[in-house]
Amino acid sequence: MQERTYIKEVPAHFGEKVKVQGLVRTIRDQKKMLFLVIEDITGAVQVAVHKPSAPEVAAELEHITVGSAVTIIGSAVHNTSVKLGEMEVQPDSVKVECLAQAPLPVDENSGPEARLDWHYLWLRHGKTQLIYKAQTVLEQAMREFWIDNGFIELHSPKIVPEASEGGAELFKIDYFEGNAYLAQSPQFYKQMAMSAGFDKVFEIGPAFRADPSSTRRHASEFTSLDMEISWIDSHEDVMYWEEKLLAHAIGKLKDAYGKEIKEQYGVDIVVPTVPFPRVTLKEAREMLAEIGHVIGHKADLDPEGERLLCKLIKDKHGHDFVFVTDYPAAVRAFYHMRYDDNKTTKSFDLLWKGQEVTTGAQREHRYEILKAQAVEKGVPLEGLHGYLDFFKYGAPPHGGCGIGLARTLVNLFELEKIADVTFAFRNRYRITP
Amino acid sequence: MQERTYIKEVPAHFGEKVKVQGLVRTIRDQKKMLFLVIEDITGAVQVAVHKPSAPEVAAELEHITVGSAVTIIGSAVHNTSVKLGEMEVQPDSVKVECLAQAPLPVDENSGPEARLDWHYLWLRHGKTQLIYKAQTVLEQAMREFWIDNGFIELHSPKIVPEASEGGAELFKIDYFEGNAYLAQSPQFYKQMAMSAGFDKVFEIGPAFRADPSSTRRHASEFTSLDMEISWIDSHEDVMYWEEKLLAHAIGKLKDAYGKEIKEQYGVDIVVPTVPFPRVTLKEAREMLAEIGHVIGHKADLDPEGERLLCKLIKDKHGHDFVFVTDYPAAVRAFYHMRYDDNKTTKSFDLLWKGQEVTTGAQREHRYEILKAQAVEKGVPLEGLHGYLDFFKYGAPPHGGCGIGLARTLVNLFELEKIADVTFAFRNRYRITP
Repeated sequence: MQERTYIKEVPAHFGEKVKVQGLVRTIRDQKKMLFLVIEDITGAVQVAVHKPSAPEVAAELEHITVGSAVTIIGSAVHNTSVKLGEMEVQPDSVKVECLAQAPLPVDENSGPEARLDWHYLWLRHGKTQLIYKAQTVLEQAMREFWIDNGFIELHSPKIVPEASEGGAELFKIDYFEGNAYLAQSPQFYKQMAMSAGFDKVFEIGPAFRADPSSTRRHASEFTSLDMEISWIDSHEDVMYWEEKLLAHAIGKLKDAYGKEIKEQYGVDIVVPTVPFPRVTLKEAREMLAEIGHVIGHKADLDPEGERLLCKLIKDKHGHDFVFVTDYPAAVRAFYHMRYDDNKTTKSFDLLWKGQEVTTGAQREHRYEILKAQAVEKGVPLEGLHGYLDFFKYGAPPHGGCGIGLARTLVNLFELEKIADVTFAFRNRYRITP
Repeated sequence: MQERTYIKEVPAHFGEKVKVQGLVRTIRDQKKMLFLVIEDITGAVQVAVHKPSAPEVAAELEHITVGSAVTIIGSAVHNTSVKLGEMEVQPDSVKVECLAQAPLPVDENSGPEARLDWHYLWLRHGKTQLIYKAQTVLEQAMREFWIDNGFIELHSPKIVPEASEGGAELFKIDYFEGNAYLAQSPQFYKQMAMSAGFDKVFEIGPAFRADPSSTRRHASEFTSLDMEISWIDSHEDVMYWEEKLLAHAIGKLKDAYGKEIKEQYGVDIVVPTVPFPRVTLKEAREMLAEIGHVIGHKADLDPEGERLLCKLIKDKHGHDFVFVTDYPAAVRAFYHMRYDDNKTTKSFDLLWKGQEVTTGAQREHRYEILKAQAVEKGVPLEGLHGYLDFFKYGAPPHGGCGIGLARTLVNLFELEKIADVTFAFRNRYRITP
């Protein structure tokens, strides 16, 4: 039986018989000639049928439609007059494996909602598929980095009994005789792993937020890239691991697809140098005040402040990333470890090209202090006992952070919306397809 | 600042100062001597304090408890009288980073429910942590195999609008103004990726089943190892990829931890040869009937039949795995592709050491036939339109399978219960910790 040839390999078989398999992208039907463009995951190729001399092939293709799945066996020909890679397949035989209904319900002129309604059709072309190829490389490079450095892979539960993190924005599940919730983040369970002595862990998995806002940066389900590290001295150690992780993964991405991303999206993948620039939130406020953007002395940066700070850092250091550190306890979660002043946390955000992509911190691992901080912040203890118990019987000092996969991809490809880089986007108004 | 030395590296530093950090496993307090065993992710080491000559260290450790997190700086000594690796650390300074409450609520004598209630404490030792180290290697080896073979990594949605697969055993979510469900399996969305032209995909992620049965083999949340492949000729291609995947991953696991698994669990990791033995369900029934175990001519194998068949295969071929193929349409899902007889499906189960670990099939990718099969099986079309639409506008022939991670680990370690290999086990009666 003839082996399949992926389309990008066709030029290596000029003068030979090949079998190509893919979906029909375009059809040009002329009097004597029928031209198809067939696309597979590696590329597209023109198929040229001279109808008078190939009546069986022409008959099989008589009702062919765009989107149909076809198997073509024929001669691979080097044809310099073909724009598409100067290659052509002249079929001896064709099989229509699946005839598509016509016309397709989405095309280049469709609006954003139609593109999401028929997202799988929208994903059919090399340009959109490139995002998922890049995602594959990026995630695997992260895992390689983590595993090479002794991290253990975690699968934390997504069905949880109560509030993780803030407590708001949880989805409730009908769970047999009672209720359960969907995990907003793996954080509490990463911390459980620290108590279990796992030393360093990572997880790539889904997280869920019942966030009613419907913006280009929000989804109710998203993929979170998470790590947690024991025996750190401060949040500085977490930033050290995060910047090394990102530099490694972006480097691998550039090696694999930098050229294609430049061709298809016009974007240069820039491998960041380490260490990333760091400023305290206080310093950031001062830098912003100097250019006339004033932020209250207890407040976090606003989106415009994030954007402006990144611009200042880019101008000064030529760097796309900046860690903003030392947030006041007032604007951070109760579990962030504090300095001795009890007012400032050992925490950070990572900003990238104007937007926050990570929140991280050293966590408070001492049971009594953690409990006191929860009380002080008004977090009800009833829902918190399971979490607090993680630290009752000993836990190493630890910290960690999480990165949104979609936000990372949006920044790498310089796209607008996380829906553009999500295989099946979910928000308040969309749970299909 | 002194760099941390992981405990397994202590012998490389005999005669030097080291900093070891870990949790206290045992305490032996004598008149003049205090002995601790400290454990980190790499091993355990004895710490010996001669109280009269180290009063500050003795004072810091005066109230030390099992489970407490400690940082020890001291001399690494080769001491042949110490059973535990013939090594000892004699501390110059000690810091108790987190004092554990005493006593721990779980120990070697605790029952299975207490072990699950305090699972993170139960996981604190090298023997249990080995499972998660093995899991890390196993999954990464699978991903390497997939990526080396051109598979794209998928993150399919866990929030879904309606019944995937069977339709039963779904968890319902309160989703803003309406309802949604938790995905039972990524299957339908893997198929969506085939329609999107992704060619070959894999996913490692959570799946959710509202299965009310509470057995050692059932969980309401589990990690599923999934792949889907386009342009297959039959289910045989899926089996080809699955057996190569498993042989590769188990080989990597044996390389990394075969020796430790043998030492700790007494189990030999056997790398399976490929191809795995294959029998049709009809042949399996005949083999079983010969030894007196009769199964109805339309029925699937029962658990005892699975166990006996694996024994027959083991005796005949010396192999731990067997693919059972060609199930009647009557016992398979509507979307399994059928042979021309319209009665037998291009499907398989994979049995391993007596238990089913995979169901796989070529899927029916032709819209009209798929719809007719759903109608014939009495599956209501109302909930199915979104799924059927995946195939309306063309889809390549494809098939795939899924493997339960916990079932795989249970078989590799020859343990009884999937709860024993799950970081945070979930069933009808348990959503904590």
